[in-house]
Parts: sequence; C-alpha cells; structure tokens
Amino acid sequence: MKIKAAIFGASGYTGQELIRILSGHPQVELAAVTSRRYAGVPVADVFPSLLGLTSLTYSNATPQEIAELCDVVFLALPHGVSMDMAPVFMQAGRKVIDLSADYRLRDLTTYEEWYAKHHSADLFGQAVYGLPERYRQEIKKSRLIANPGCYPTSIILGLAPALKNNLLSVSTIIADSASGVSGAGRDPQVGSLFCEVDGGFKAYKVGRHRHTPEIEQELNMLAGEKFAISFTPHLLPVKRGILSTIYATLKKDMTLPELHALYASFYEAEKFVRICPVGTYPNLSSVCGSNYCDVGLTIDPRTHRVIIISAIDNLIKGAAGQAVQNMNLVCSLPEESGLPMAPLYP
Amino acid sequence: MKIKAAIFGASGYTGQELIRILSGHPQVELAAVTSRRYAGVPVADVFPSLLGLTSLTYSNATPQEIAELCDVVFLALPHGVSMDMAPVFMQAGRKVIDLSADYRLRDLTTYEEWYAKHHSADLFGQAVYGLPERYRQEIKKSRLIANPGCYPTSIILGLAPALKNNLLSVSTIIADSASGVSGAGRDPQVGSLFCEVDGGFKAYKVGRHRHTPEIEQELNMLAGEKFAISFTPHLLPVKRGILSTIYATLKKDMTLPELHALYASFYEAEKFVRICPVGTYPNLSSVCGSNYCDVGLTIDPRTHRVIIISAIDNLIKGAAGQAVQNMNLVCSLPEESGLPMAPLYP
Amino acid sequence: MKIKAAIFGASGYTGQELIRILSGHPQVELAAVTSRRYAGVPVADVFPSLLGLTSLTYSNATPQEIAELCDVVFLALPHGVSMDMAPVFMQAGRKVIDLSADYRLRDLTTYEEWYAKHHSADLFGQAVYGLPERYRQEIKKSRLIANPGCYPTSIILGLAPALKNNLLSVSTIIADSASGVSGAGRDPQVGSLFCEVDGGFKAYKVGRHRHTPEIEQELNMLAGEKFAISFTPHLLPVKRGILSTIYATLKKDMTLPELHALYASFYEAEKFVRICPVGTYPNLSSVCGSNYCDVGLTIDPRTHRVIIISAIDNLIKGAAGQAVQNMNLVCSLPEESGLPMAPLYP
Amino acid sequence: MKIKAAIFGASGYTGQELIRILSGHPQVELAAVTSRRYAGVPVADVFPSLLGLTSLTYSNATPQEIAELCDVVFLALPHGVSMDMAPVFMQAGRKVIDLSADYRLRDLTTYEEWYAKHHSADLFGQAVYGLPERYRQEIKKSRLIANPGCYPTSIILGLAPALKNNLLSVSTIIADSASGVSGAGRDPQVGSLFCEVDGGFKAYKVGRHRHTPEIEQELNMLAGEKFAISFTPHLLPVKRGILSTIYATLKKDMTLPELHALYASFYEAEKFVRICPVGTYPNLSSVCGSNYCDVGLTIDPRTHRVIIISAIDNLIKGAAGQAVQNMNLVCSLPEESGLPMAPLYP
Repeated sequence: MKIKAAIFGASGYTGQELIRILSGHPQVELAAVTSRRYAGVPVADVFPSLLGLTSLTYSNATPQEIAELCDVVFLALPHGVSMDMAPVFMQAGRKVIDLSADYRLRDLTTYEEWYAKHHSADLFGQAVYGLPERYRQEIKKSRLIANPGCYPTSIILGLAPALKNNLLSVSTIIADSASGVSGAGRDPQVGSLFCEVDGGFKAYKVGRHRHTPEIEQELNMLAGEKFAISFTPHLLPVKRGILSTIYATLKKDMTLPELHALYASFYEAEKFVRICPVGTYPNLSSVCGSNYCDVGLTIDPRTHRVIIISAIDNLIKGAAGQAVQNMNLVCSLPEESGLPMAPLYP
Repeated sequence: MKIKAAIFGASGYTGQELIRILSGHPQVELAAVTSRRYAGVPVADVFPSLLGLTSLTYSNATPQEIAELCDVVFLALPHGVSMDMAPVFMQAGRKVIDLSADYRLRDLTTYEEWYAKHHSADLFGQAVYGLPERYRQEIKKSRLIANPGCYPTSIILGLAPALKNNLLSVSTIIADSASGVSGAGRDPQVGSLFCEVDGGFKAYKVGRHRHTPEIEQELNMLAGEKFAISFTPHLLPVKRGILSTIYATLKKDMTLPELHALYASFYEAEKFVRICPVGTYPNLSSVCGSNYCDVGLTIDPRTHRVIIISAIDNLIKGAAGQAVQNMNLVCSLPEESGLPMAPLYP
Repeated sequence: MKIKAAIFGASGYTGQELIRILSGHPQVELAAVTSRRYAGVPVADVFPSLLGLTSLTYSNATPQEIAELCDVVFLALPHGVSMDMAPVFMQAGRKVIDLSADYRLRDLTTYEEWYAKHHSADLFGQAVYGLPERYRQEIKKSRLIANPGCYPTSIILGLAPALKNNLLSVSTIIADSASGVSGAGRDPQVGSLFCEVDGGFKAYKVGRHRHTPEIEQELNMLAGEKFAISFTPHLLPVKRGILSTIYATLKKDMTLPELHALYASFYEAEKFVRICPVGTYPNLSSVCGSNYCDVGLTIDPRTHRVIIISAIDNLIKGAAGQAVQNMNLVCSLPEESGLPMAPLYP
Repeated sequence: MKIKAAIFGASGYTGQELIRILSGHPQVELAAVTSRRYAGVPVADVFPSLLGLTSLTYSNATPQEIAELCDVVFLALPHGVSMDMAPVFMQAGRKVIDLSADYRLRDLTTYEEWYAKHHSADLFGQAVYGLPERYRQEIKKSRLIANPGCYPTSIILGLAPALKNNLLSVSTIIADSASGVSGAGRDPQVGSLFCEVDGGFKAYKVGRHRHTPEIEQELNMLAGEKFAISFTPHLLPVKRGILSTIYATLKKDMTLPELHALYASFYEAEKFVRICPVGTYPNLSSVCGSNYCDVGLTIDPRTHRVIIISAIDNLIKGAAGQAVQNMNLVCSLPEESGLPMAPLYP
C-alpha cells in the first residue's frame, strides 16, 4: 500500500517541485495539496508543465482536515507560518517534514533574534535537523524533520569532513555562496524580475542573511567548539542551483591527495554526495535537476588555505529533494526512492 | 534479461542525452558508447553530470565490433556518416535507430539535392520514419528507424490532425520555428558561443534549411497532395527546446471548440502529446526535460487563419527521447519505458 | 540655451531609458521627472546605474506644475492615463511626446474597441503618429506626437518599402514577432519573473494583441487599401529587443537583388534604418543599445513569398530613443542628437 | 586635428570594443585595424552591429606599416605576441597601449614563471601599469602603457583605499571573483559555448590563475609589504562584467561610516569610481556598458572582517575603456573623452 502524502502550501517553486517529484514516486500517493490563493484551481492550470502528471486541484482545507488524509505532510510554508501548523499535524500523529526555518535552530533565543517570536518552541526537542548525511539515524526515529536551508546544505556538506577531522582553523572560515533566483520564491517582486536579474550579479544581505545562525549551529556541532563565520550570499542569473566557495586555513600541512582521500572516504557510502576528481570542481550545470551535492577541493600552498567548493540544485537537494529523502527515511523506504538521479545537462 | 544497447557517436549533446536516458532505463543495459575523439576516456570525465550514473568509457571500436555487443544500436552521427554504418549493423541482424537524416527521405533525388551523395540508398525500402504517433505499427515491424529531425517533429505533430482532416488550404502553410542552441551541437563554433547567443535572436538559413524537404514529405503524405511550405528557423538564447508557430488558412469556417475537440480526440491515446486547454499556448519551459510535445491552437476570425503552436525539448522528443521511444517499440517494451515524464520547471 | 524637458511617469523601464538618454543629450536639460510611488526619492536610489549621471529626485508634482518647468514633456504613462495629462500640457503650450497608445489611432471607435473609453479624443486631429521615417515633416510641425508602439515600429518599417511600391498581396501578410521582457514593464508580475522567462519561449495574446489595429492602420495607409493581418507576439528570454519575421506573397515575380535595391534606396537617407547585406539577417544583438532598426529580406522562390525580418531595441527605437528622435524633430535639433549610436555587442 | 589611432589585433571582443568606442570618440580617427584571419574583410561584415559606424576593412599590414599610419597603437593581442610588436612601435616613436599581460609585471622572473619566456624585457623600465586611479601622472609621461587585467582592475580598485591606509591584516585577504564569458575571448572553445555556460556557475583555475601575481604586485606596492592572497575566479552566465567580493580582517576596530567616508574621500576626484551608499552593493547590471567601477563595502562585527565588493564591465573598465582612458591621458585629452558613461540597464 502506498504512503499518503500531503503538501501544505504547494503553490510556490518548492511546492511545485514536491508535486513534480512525488507524482513520480513509486511508493507514494499524493493525497492533497493546499493553496489559499489557488483554492479550487487544478494544479496543472497553475503549472502547465504538470499537465497529465497530476489531476489534483488545490484545496483550502484546514490542517486538521489535511491530517485526516495523509500519513506524512510536507509544510512548504514561510517561516512563522509553519510553527502554527506543525503542532496540529504532530498532535494528529502524522509525520511532518517542515521546509521552513521554524524548527532548524536548537536555541530559541537565536531563533527569535534572527527571525521572530516562536509559538511552538516546545516541539524543539522532538525536531531533528534533516540532513541525512549527518543525522540519518535520528531522522529515522523522528516525526518532526526540520528540512535544512539551501545555503546551509551546501556549506555543511562541504565542510563536514574537514571539521569532523579537526583540520581547520575555524575562525578563518569564509563561505562565499551564489544562488539561483528560484530561491527567492514565486511571489512577484521587482528584484526577481527577468530584467533585474539577467546579465547581473550581486551580493545581498551581506553579513546578515538568516541562514548564518543555522550554518554556524551545525558547523559548531561538527567542530565541537563555538565560532562565527563570514557568509556572503550572491544572486546568480540562473533559475536553479547554489554554489559555495569555502575558504579556511589548515591547522597543519597536508597534501591534496590526503585531503581528497579523506573526503572520498567520508562520503563513500552516500548516494547523493559526489567528490569531484582532483583538479576538477563542481558546476551548477552538473547537478541541477538532481538530488546530488558535488564537492571539489584544493589546497593553496601559497596561503595554506583549503578551498572547498560545493554545488547543489537549491530546489532539490536544497529543498524538495532533500525533503523527500527525509520522507523516505522517516517512512522506512529506500533512501533514494523516487528521487531524480540524472542532472539535466545541458 | 535486459536489452543490450550501444550508441555509436556518443560525445555530442544527443549522445549524452541518450546515455543519460538509457542509464536510467529499467529494461536496458548500455553496453558500449563510441567516440573517436574521446576513445579511452571515461564518459563521466567528459560529462561530469554523469559521474556515478555510468562507469562506461568511450570506445573506438568498429561497427562490426560494436554489433557483437548489442541488440540495438543508436547512430548519433552526422548525416553522411550514418549511411556507412547502418549497413554493417543491418547485416549483423541488429536493430538500428539512426538519428541522422540519412534514411528520413523516401526520395533519393531529394536527399542528394539537399544533402550529399548517398552510399546505402538500397536500405530506403526497409527504413521507417520514426514518428510513433504517425507510424507506430510500421516501426514495431522494422529494424531500421529513421529518427525524425527536431523541427519536423514539432511541425508534423502540430499539423497532423488538421491535414488528416483536410481542413487547410495547404499552399498557405507557414511554419515559423525557434530552436535552442543545443540543436547546433557541441562542436565549438563562433555562432554557438555564449556571447554570440545570449541576449540575441535571429533567423538563419532562411528558405534553405535542410529540414524543409523532410517536413514537406510528411505533410504531403498527411494531406495526400504535393505542396511546398515556408519554414523559417530562428536561434533562441536557450539551451533546449523548439517552438513552432504555424499559420494556415482554413478551407471552410469552423469554431475553435470544434477544432480543439478534433485535436484532443486525434491525440487522445498518445502518452507524449498534450493539447493545451483553449486559450492557453505551449511554453518551452513546460516541456523541457520531458518527452512531451505540447500543442496549442486558435482561430483568428479576422483572417480565417488557424494558428497552431507546438513545443518540444529538441534533445528529447526531438532526438534522444524519441529515439528511445522508437527503441521501446522496436524491442516490444512499453512505449514510455525509461522516458523522462516530468518537465524540469522552473 | 538648452531645451528643458520633463518626464511624466519616469519610474518604469521606458522612463529610466529616457532619463539615461536625456542625461547625456548635449542640447537638453532634464528639468523634472515624476513618479507617484517614488516621490521624494533620488532617481539614483531607484536606478543605481544612474548614480553620478543625474542628481534628480522624483517629484509628485501635478501636470500643471510640471508644465511650468519645461518646454517639452514626455508622457511615459500607461494608456488611459496619458489622455488625461496630455490636454493640460497642450493647453499650457508645451510640446508633448506621448509614449502611450492614447493618440496613436486615428479612429475613436477602434481605440475604444481595443482599449477603453477616451477622454480627450478632440486632440486626435492635432496628433501625429511619431514614426519619423514616415511622417518627418508632419512631426516637425506638430505639438502632440503619438510615439509608436514597439511591435508596430518594427513591422511598419519592415513593410513600408514593399507596400509603398505595391509589391504585396496584402491579404497574405503575417507578422510573427518576439519581444524581450522589458516590454512588459517593471511592475512585478509572475509572468515577468526570471524563473518564468529564462529558458522559456511562448506566444501570448495570440490574435488579440492591442498593437494589431495600430499596425493595420499604418499598413493600410501605406498600401492605400483596407486589410487585416495576422500578428503573433512571443516572449523571448532577453531583456531588450523585438525581432519581427514578416511573410507575404509577392504580387508578381521579382528578383532578390531588385527587391534589396528597392529597400536600400527607400531608406537611403535614413540615419536609423540599416538594410542588411543580401544573405544576412538582423540579430537582436546587433541593434540592442542603439536606435537602429535593422532590416533583412529574402524571396523564397518555392512559395513566391517575401520574408522580411526587422529588429529594434524595444526600449530605444521602440520607445525612448524614438521619442527623443521625435523631440529632436519637434525642437528643431539635429535628428540624431543625443541618441545612442553604437549597439552594445556582445 | 584628430589623433590617429590603430588597433593591432582587432577581431576579438576587446578589439571590437575598441573599434566601437573609438568610432565614437570625438578627438580620434581610427586609421587602421588589423586581423590576420579577417584580412580584407570589412569590419562590419565580421561585426554587423558596427554597420554604418565604421567603413574600415581589416588589414594584414606589418607593425612597421601600421606605425606609419598612427600616433597611438592599441595592441589587443594575446600575451607572448605583444612582446614582439611593442618594440617596433616604440622604436617608431609611437605611443603604445598594450592590452596583453606582457608589460604588467615588473619582475621578469615572475613573468616567466607564470607566463613564458620574454623577448623584450628591456622595455620593462619604460612601461607604466595603466591604472589611471593609481598611476595617472606616470601614465601621462609614458609611451608604453601596460593596460591592467580585468580581475586585477576590480580587486586593486576595491582594496586601494584600505591598503593605502594600512587598515588590513594583509595575510587574510581573499578575493572571490566572477567574470562574464567575454573574458574568455571569441575563439571557439567548448567551455564558452552557450550550452556549457547558461544555467551554470563554476570556479576555474583555482589557486593558479595568471592574474594572481599581477594582483599581488600591485597590492604589495599599495601596502608597502610582501604578501600572498587567495584569488578564486568563477565563470558567470553573463556576457560582460566582473564582480569581486573581497574579504580581509581589520587591523583594528573601526565603524562602517568611518570606513565608508575614507573610501568616498579617496575616490572623490575620480570620474570612473563610484562608492555605493552605505547598505547597498554593486551589481553588474549597474556598470555594464560603462567605464565605471562601483565599490560597496561593509564591516562584519561578528568576525571583524571588512567585505569589499567591486564591479566593472570587463570589456570596458577591464579592457578597452581603460585603454582609451589611458590613451586620453597619454595624448593629453580630457580623461573621460569618448568613454561610455551611462550603463545599459536593464
């Protein structure tokens, strides 16, 4: 029997991507998708690409009503909204994959400093940070998964092997990232218009992006010590993808083959992390359309810095794909089930 | 037991797309891929997107050697080269899906007028034009499939219902098409450089594109009479996709709902043709990444013209996807097996 | 002494382009720019590209107040708004370049059929259609210039020589056009988002675009007879530019050199129309950033059709540049004064 | 009387940009342009955007012959070729603006380590590094100008005020840069194809780009001490532009207003450097098409790092525009004469 899934808030790019992936998932039946704006409208009218792939119509049902229809729910909602929905689904005994930031931080004060007042912080203890490569066992046992942010996914996966092995002078870490426009969502705003983005490139929210505490929380856990990083997001004229170029000073000398072997071994069993051959580096074109995170690296002997570059599709490994990966774990399905494997190149 | 497939000439965009699709095909084992330039190089070194998805290395084997390894071969070669390879595979009893133009035209004179001297025209009688929506039964029985050109696929599928039903004044047909750059292949040339294409749009080969006789051959067959059309290809600043806007004068008045119903009914059983709801039209974004051909249409009462718009992914329905669809038919597999269904939007 | 210009409604892409051009115009002083939304905000805060090029701040002044400050006013307003502003400036004795559609049509019924109720149709008699290559003498004598639409500019300039010389069977004319996204303006809407447009291509408003009556009015005038055309606009994933591919059947046989010579001679004295050499066709990349209209053409002997292709930068020759060209004429300045000449390629 | 200029090697993107700018320069007559590949071909046949703007034909003349025709020559040649041409023009008494890397480095050993054997290193003493904001007086007196690299221009201008004022811990400097594709030139290569670049983003030549020693030479001069930096170039899917995000630790605490004021004052008299208002950062869209370098900055109090972002059009301020700026200085013309001022936005 198929698992019944629902998506709460399914009219944005992440919601669409969840519908796209789940409509082809062999062990899942997509039971309901909600949208206040499009209530009563067939999904394929809003997203013509899905014509023939889903016959669902957007519903305006309450969380209680949706909980009746599903085993697992994806919350593809803005932060601040999820925190009011998750408790309903939890109380109804459902499994919850929350794609907002509401349950990612373990520290309430930090959450309220960077985001807003929290209404269901009592669930913090039950939430697991949904990065399977890091918390696979915890995820399997949890019912509330805080699906990671897109930038954090790319940066944490890029640094995990080095931090776990205590290779880096942590105060020197700098993550310079660039994201495609879909990260800004489908709500119309001047800054996301084609004419504003195409041919352009810019940094934004320099030194104050909300993913910073999330990244630091996980990097600190990996290193076992407290430190701050510099994180600068940029807006790329592409639809999908995040590439992070990460700099840090090595604590002691090591060779590139040694470092490369350490990374390859760290991720050996992972289906969705690929280490680029020495001398090659990730390209958004080589991951977009898939759930892969590609990681490449080098050592600059002139400055004793390691340079790690990681790339993901922000809507897949950075959002909907990782959410389905988490659902697979939570529902005891094969971890890669239904997930897009082959990147769409060119 | 899996069917063994080989790709002869697999280093271009179409070859890559065949590898990408076949490496995920549940009933196929990709046995060999050839490339003179990349002989001995792992496929994933040339196309890093395929890292982890294929462990094949490019071979420089002869057609005879490749024939030993496979049940079916895809020829992803330029026209003029296929005609020397196909006979070898045919003689060895293999099934051949030829993606070049060499066996598409039924008339040798026309071929030699638009292309070059032909070396294996004796195979013309065995070749079937591989448009499943048109020649499904013939394809199933054939061993030599001439996979259609990308522009022809979009235009023939767009016009078939109208011509089959004798609705159009055939001398008025104009097909105004636009293609993504991947149609020009992966060989480096100035005209395909990012800086030449991005931000630009232009017509090319106006009145003299080689797909013209192929389009006319099939349209003439559909209409049961001989006529010429105007066909103007344009180069779009996108990687994938062909959109054709087709104009023709109606022979007699009919309403849009009538015409729309006729189209919907004509393609009712087709898995890969979608008719857009009245008042909506195809968009490349809604088909790229899939094997779909979307068709939209309207009638302009002011000019008594019907306007038909069709869209495909040129590398999938316009090349590699249609080739696999043909392979499925030729090998008695389910027609949609292994084919990408969900377009990658956004 | 410099001419004092004002722009009413200067916060959109056309308004910005007017500021950009006029701030470098040697005989013009830009005296005021208005915007309700940005009243009190420096122009360079809204458009950082203009930092250091203008020190103007957006004003919320009334038409009456603006009229006090200027000799000539550009109305860069939506249709329906211009019609209430133009009378104020006319009454104050100012010269008016209206970039909306409000005074382009000579027939009130047609205007109200395609647009809305008109409030100042009494000015129709004073308005001149501002296509200098067609109405230069009339423009010089007028005080109310109806600046042409972007699509009409490209199509009329493409067909004028052929229609003026009675070469075409007018009922066969089809104009298949494609425009960059800036034509949709700077107001945020889903359809203009980067993620909706990039990688896509689609037709829109098929058979019902409001530029149709404007195009037909001018083509009918050129031909001296009444007829309808088919006009299909498409949305291109580029910021700027319109390319029109125009089809028509020749009334009688003529050679391409004859036709080419006729076009070259027709536009011989024009500074802003370039006829492409035989065998070459316009490309948006070769006109964008300039006030040029490039025209290329061929004859398809197989179908007796002429195919004419024209290209402009929709924001320059299709809007702001042509408006300044008109201002130069109206103010007795050299016609090309201040206008961008060299396209920005690549 | 106009200055006579020639361009040696004028068939690439930089050469075209020089023709574009110089054909509109009021005090310059472009006397000759050379290209081996296009000898005898009109410039406008190779670059249709220049139709009507130049009537020049590519010449295959020798340096000696070209020297007879001009007062000043631009060498738009690959490194390794300029070093054989410059001596000829120097000996003939001409002024030379060399756009290659051949005379940028002051140290022969460094040049030969990163590039190749040098044939005219004896000219090193006469060459001035052509960054006007840094060496204006020296440029005016020189006859051999080594026009800076594109990445170096953006990074040096971004760091100059901070280094000159001894604010930074120099060993912590990291420059993370991204360039448009035109930086790779017009020679066809797979990596510059539209299908390889569009939708992608990647780092390249990590830790080993040839601009590194050039950047370090100038930063070391500014700081008055020897140090190495990390410099990572990335390839952006845009035609033009370089954006550099530069990180460094502050030697001692200072406020953002203090730092901003210091930058504003440092560049107060510069026509082509714009400091972005506090809280705003450069965007390629806001500089491309102009000779501006935009600089924005902030201080991250959490990490005591300064983050400086600079943006230029790589073909203008990063190549042809700066070359003309240097020519203006060398020829005693107003520094901004003939230079494109208004960026082409959108």
